Amino acid sequence: MNQTVNLSIEDLQARVTAIFRNAGLNKVQASSVSAVIVAGERDACKSHGIYRIEGTLRTVKAGKVRANATPRLIEGAGEAIARVDADGGFANPAFDLGLPELAERAHRLGLAALVITDCTHFSALWSEVEAVTEQGLVCMAMCPSYATVAPAGGSKALLGTNPFAFGWPRPGRDPYVFDFATSVAARGEIELYRRAGKPLPEGWALDATGAPTTDPESALAGAMLPFGEHKGSAISTMIELLAGVMIGDLTSQSALDYLGTTTLAPKHGELILAMSPERFATGRPGDPHSRAEELFEAILGQGARLPSQRRFAARARAKAEGIRLSADEAALLDRLEALGLDAID
Amino acid sequence: MNQTVNLSIEDLQARVTAIFRNAGLNKVQASSVSAVIVAGERDACKSHGIYRIEGTLRTVKAGKVRANATPRLIEGAGEAIARVDADGGFANPAFDLGLPELAERAHRLGLAALVITDCTHFSALWSEVEAVTEQGLVCMAMCPSYATVAPAGGSKALLGTNPFAFGWPRPGRDPYVFDFATSVAARGEIELYRRAGKPLPEGWALDATGAPTTDPESALAGAMLPFGEHKGSAISTMIELLAGVMIGDLTSQSALDYLGTTTLAPKHGELILAMSPERFATGRPGDPHSRAEELFEAILGQGARLPSQRRFAARARAKAEGIRLSADEAALLDRLEALGLDAID
Repeated sequence: MNQTVNLSIEDLQARVTAIFRNAGLNKVQASSVSAVIVAGERDACKSHGIYRIEGTLRTVKAGKVRANATPRLIEGAGEAIARVDADGGFANPAFDLGLPELAERAHRLGLAALVITDCTHFSALWSEVEAVTEQGLVCMAMCPSYATVAPAGGSKALLGTNPFAFGWPRPGRDPYVFDFATSVAARGEIELYRRAGKPLPEGWALDATGAPTTDPESALAGAMLPFGEHKGSAISTMIELLAGVMIGDLTSQSALDYLGTTTLAPKHGELILAMSPERFATGRPGDPHSRAEELFEAILGQGARLPSQRRFAARARAKAEGIRLSADEAALLDRLEALGLDAID
Repeated sequence: MNQTVNLSIEDLQARVTAIFRNAGLNKVQASSVSAVIVAGERDACKSHGIYRIEGTLRTVKAGKVRANATPRLIEGAGEAIARVDADGGFANPAFDLGLPELAERAHRLGLAALVITDCTHFSALWSEVEAVTEQGLVCMAMCPSYATVAPAGGSKALLGTNPFAFGWPRPGRDPYVFDFATSVAARGEIELYRRAGKPLPEGWALDATGAPTTDPESALAGAMLPFGEHKGSAISTMIELLAGVMIGDLTSQSALDYLGTTTLAPKHGELILAMSPERFATGRPGDPHSRAEELFEAILGQGARLPSQRRFAARARAKAEGIRLSADEAALLDRLEALGLDAID
């Protein structure tokens, strides 16, 4: 079992969907969830690829997500707000349902929001941001997670790793997309330092007493810190307010209280804003698309990268050559296919 | 002349307004511009206080801002977008004109944007963000500035210090407000290191060749760096796209090209988003205002601060005791009153 395996995107999608169907997810949940996992593998975003299947199934097995949920549109919040109740299922099928509503409102009004509530979230935001840009819209997206990050100047976990993502459509090419955790590092990165027996960089974490630490073990028992000190901390707090409190869904603290663990996918809501560049630029000089390209060229021209470049390059390779799984990854897939939920501790 | 001077907020407002009127600003420009300068003094935000009068007058004298501009509302961009053409004047009177339009749309639709174009911007965003929260709305605001910041991984100035600001209304008390530059430090801070003959912290700046530097002189001839490395750089780029390109106004690079100097107040546009927490929370469990207070208490409870706390404390003092000017500041005010535009080099 040390052979790598090559699969087409479609074949991997079929296999992951079958695993989720076999674990009891209904059609709409299984197909949306598997699509974002396969997108992670396709883009060589291994942390959001098939590695996520086990955690997702563990959340199903723990009864913390509804496998047969049917998301539905909710009216009445205001004309610029599209809302989807995820019915206790995963965020992804709720997003798929809400996207056309969001796009219609943003194109018509210039600006609109998609609010998803009562969902379990385990995937990156970039797949949703990209889907919005495919509608010719600019996108900003954010959600809480669970309390593992201390506010700047604080002593214990209260905020989540709270991702913040943005997308700008580039007709005919891959969009400008960024998507990052507002913590200085991901929990998984700290875990890698622990396994390697290496100290953490300064400024990453606090120990359980609230003192700064570079010891990975102490950090995992304590709290991570926000990126960019008080500025990142402010953005993370903004995300708790907008995508937790304002939309009437869980904050990172209440999500952790609900789950009681960080080993399951977190339950909360999500806020996605969409803007029409054509609407905003109405009557103004210059075409926003060609002006954006000038900005991107100026960034690239001085040797800096655009975010997501590596991901898009991996995607192009996967489309041409298929997705390569390591022997361990292929074995994991085989095991999950054979055992279903029984493969999960 | 080494006596400090104490003035009421109203007296300072009258004196600063008179200076601007005397320099040729029409009533609407003079009163809005002086209001934000006095707000800076009132909040002990000295960098945005009366110190700004000279730079503002210098921009008037250079003919780079229209002293007799009359901002006007522009229709046709989309129902969720309020637009104000600042007519080549300052951003502040344009904001004052657009605020009721923004508030009406956000309360009705749930979410709306105010776009200001063709304005000169020299003040902090927090005064605008606070004015939006006074309407019971959540606010996010941003604008470019001029190219003094290199993108992460780049070698030369392209982005601005691009402020990003946010406000959450807290009925009956000061709002939750943050407002920060997306550069790791302000240009003025680097200037302070230069005067003190001290090296800069690592990671603040590049020299003119694009190499990292801790020498303030080299940094001022080179470029500043974004806060939070690639994450802050991405946010700064987002601000160029949203509040420059998308609204059909200048980017930080084109603003610098237009002015040819960083000693005048920059010309560009501004984007302000407003959201109604009541609209977003419709039909959801929990009151967003009391839930937000729980979050703020949890932050304060672990010894962290809320942003703007110091500013609000200074404001309370100024309301009770007046604004204290140093002897130098009082002399500056006297000189500007006596000489008007002739006091400006």
